[in-house]
Amino acid sequence: MRVMGVDPGLTRCGVGVVEGAPGKPLRLVRVDVVRTSPDDDIALRLLGIETGIAALLDELRPDAVAVERVFSQHNVRTVMGTAQAAGVAMLLAARRGLPVAMHTPSEAKAAVTGNGRADKAQVTMMVTRLLRLDAAPRPADAADALALAICHVWRGGARTRLDQARLAARAGRGKGGVGQ
Amino acid sequence: MRVMGVDPGLTRCGVGVVEGAPGKPLRLVRVDVVRTSPDDDIALRLLGIETGIAALLDELRPDAVAVERVFSQHNVRTVMGTAQAAGVAMLLAARRGLPVAMHTPSEAKAAVTGNGRADKAQVTMMVTRLLRLDAAPRPADAADALALAICHVWRGGARTRLDQARLAARAGRGKGGVGQ
Repeated sequence: MRVMGVDPGLTRCGVGVVEGAPGKPLRLVRVDVVRTSPDDDIALRLLGIETGIAALLDELRPDAVAVERVFSQHNVRTVMGTAQAAGVAMLLAARRGLPVAMHTPSEAKAAVTGNGRADKAQVTMMVTRLLRLDAAPRPADAADALALAICHVWRGGARTRLDQARLAARAGRGKGGVGQ
Repeated sequence: MRVMGVDPGLTRCGVGVVEGAPGKPLRLVRVDVVRTSPDDDIALRLLGIETGIAALLDELRPDAVAVERVFSQHNVRTVMGTAQAAGVAMLLAARRGLPVAMHTPSEAKAAVTGNGRADKAQVTMMVTRLLRLDAAPRPADAADALALAICHVWRGGARTRLDQARLAARAGRGKGGVGQ
């Protein structure tokens, strides 16, 4: 199972692609950050995020996309942009028929370190170890996206299968489609 | 000048297209609501919003898109979905090279009624009058999208020209593009 994890943001949107299955070794496929300039209009920035993630999806063809769940605890403007970047990632996945899952930052941290409140250094160390890399993945701030992808490989597969069963059941009841 | 106003939402996304210029009569081009089902995954719903708005953009070819600015004063989950629907509208406009403006609900209400706190009935009455319609536009809940488009025709044109001048100036300094 190949999973793309997306740590959404307008200025820096982390993307980590990992291959694996529960109980089997993990493999790093790609780690990258899509950047847009704070000087640009929000619309142009969302277009930049779309272009960057679309290119990675088309090249790397993951089986599923895991997006970090956005909370509104911080600065409102930042949260809106983050939510919109997350929306673009979900939209791109849906357009390709890929299942989308959301995991919280705590779920991702707990998956790779056993502690939902682990700090960045600890997450990076465990991601490096779990992917059997010689050095911490670069860019450094994409470690969260990799943790998210690993989290999904380990616990999201089941959820994805459940979602698919639910979608199939719903389609069977004539309730499928985008419902416009 | 033909403007598409978008009143973003996941369950109901109002779209109103208006033609006009400051000091000249306004003309209704189209009013519609793009709907998605609350039973669907957020990713599928964003895809439904994209499909619906893209079809209207391609058919009606507005010169600019005005999106209602989203605030986070209400329910957090609703606001995230609304922000993401707004993001999809902005993304679609940017992809077509259209200028995007954001106006607050108060700005739109003040533009058509003179009162930023006008109620729905008053906004609908003024939109009906300003567009010289025989009856209130249907679906009724798209009146806000029309008010937003009218607001942009009347006050947004200048802002759009400013934005374009700024973008042109920035491009001249080598800072254009999506900044990935």
